[in-house]
Amino acid sequence: MASEIKYRMADAVDILGRTPGVLRAMLHGLPETWIANNYGKDTFSPFDVVGHLLDADEVNWMPRLRMILEAGTRRAFEPFDRYAMYARFRGVDLETLLADFERVRRKNLADLAALELTDGDLERCGMHPDLGEVRAGQLLATWVVHDLNHVHQVAKCMAYQYREAIGPWRPYVGVLPPA
Amino acid sequence: MASEIKYRMADAVDILGRTPGVLRAMLHGLPETWIANNYGKDTFSPFDVVGHLLDADEVNWMPRLRMILEAGTRRAFEPFDRYAMYARFRGVDLETLLADFERVRRKNLADLAALELTDGDLERCGMHPDLGEVRAGQLLATWVVHDLNHVHQVAKCMAYQYREAIGPWRPYVGVLPPA
Repeated sequence: MASEIKYRMADAVDILGRTPGVLRAMLHGLPETWIANNYGKDTFSPFDVVGHLLDADEVNWMPRLRMILEAGTRRAFEPFDRYAMYARFRGVDLETLLADFERVRRKNLADLAALELTDGDLERCGMHPDLGEVRAGQLLATWVVHDLNHVHQVAKCMAYQYREAIGPWRPYVGVLPPA
Repeated sequence: MASEIKYRMADAVDILGRTPGVLRAMLHGLPETWIANNYGKDTFSPFDVVGHLLDADEVNWMPRLRMILEAGTRRAFEPFDRYAMYARFRGVDLETLLADFERVRRKNLADLAALELTDGDLERCGMHPDLGEVRAGQLLATWVVHDLNHVHQVAKCMAYQYREAIGPWRPYVGVLPPA
């Protein structure tokens, strides 16, 4: 079990380190319509996703991890506003967001490495405002899955822009809602 | 309408050109378990996805486009075996597949540019073995959406590997099936 968690921790850091480059490869220099269009009411555009990930890297993941290590379950995490990027990054261009996300992610992973978490640390619990007790290792795994969820969302959102253009192929494409 | 299609054509080429780099950023050097695990019966692992995209680039998209231009609706496309990569790339390593996909995609986009398709060409029809008449422009849009669908699938598959590790966060993650 311990070695399993250690293994996952190394993987988590590996995958987290990739996300800024993955989003850059998908989005850098893409025409504005592909960046700004979402895929329906209350959905995130690719621009929204990059802003959301940057925001979460600044105010959510590492602050919560530090609170687990410092206060355990004695203090609940600050609630995370998953829509904060709408107001925060209005008028900012995507290239700035991509560069900022790369920089902040790099800093966070350096800070994470500097914590030199033990297997025991990964088992330590904090208090989520809605979910109750959560472990440090679960928080780190969720950080990874959150990244992947939003990479998946960018691809889905981009595919959606061609929902009409593909004509009769639409039923073959699992990522699109039925016509 | 014509300028809209022209615009989409340039975008299509732009996005198609990115996919090998996106997959490289996601997968290059990742531990074997992340490459080889799928997310359930009859699903594609990240390794399967790269092999499938390489295979489709070799036998599906450009051959079908050429058939539209050469034979119109007089000859139906060859059916595409979407599982051909299982046998074809058994034992091949991911790095080879990534490099081959990059090379074949680059060649295909050069060939596509050399065709100098007009707006009229994009309206020309071919015969899909199941879907009936399809336009060249729809084929190109579907090529793009097919890429995005599989990038989306790689992220989903990777997220799935942490379905247990994230513990109580699972209901918050849209990309994962309910626990």
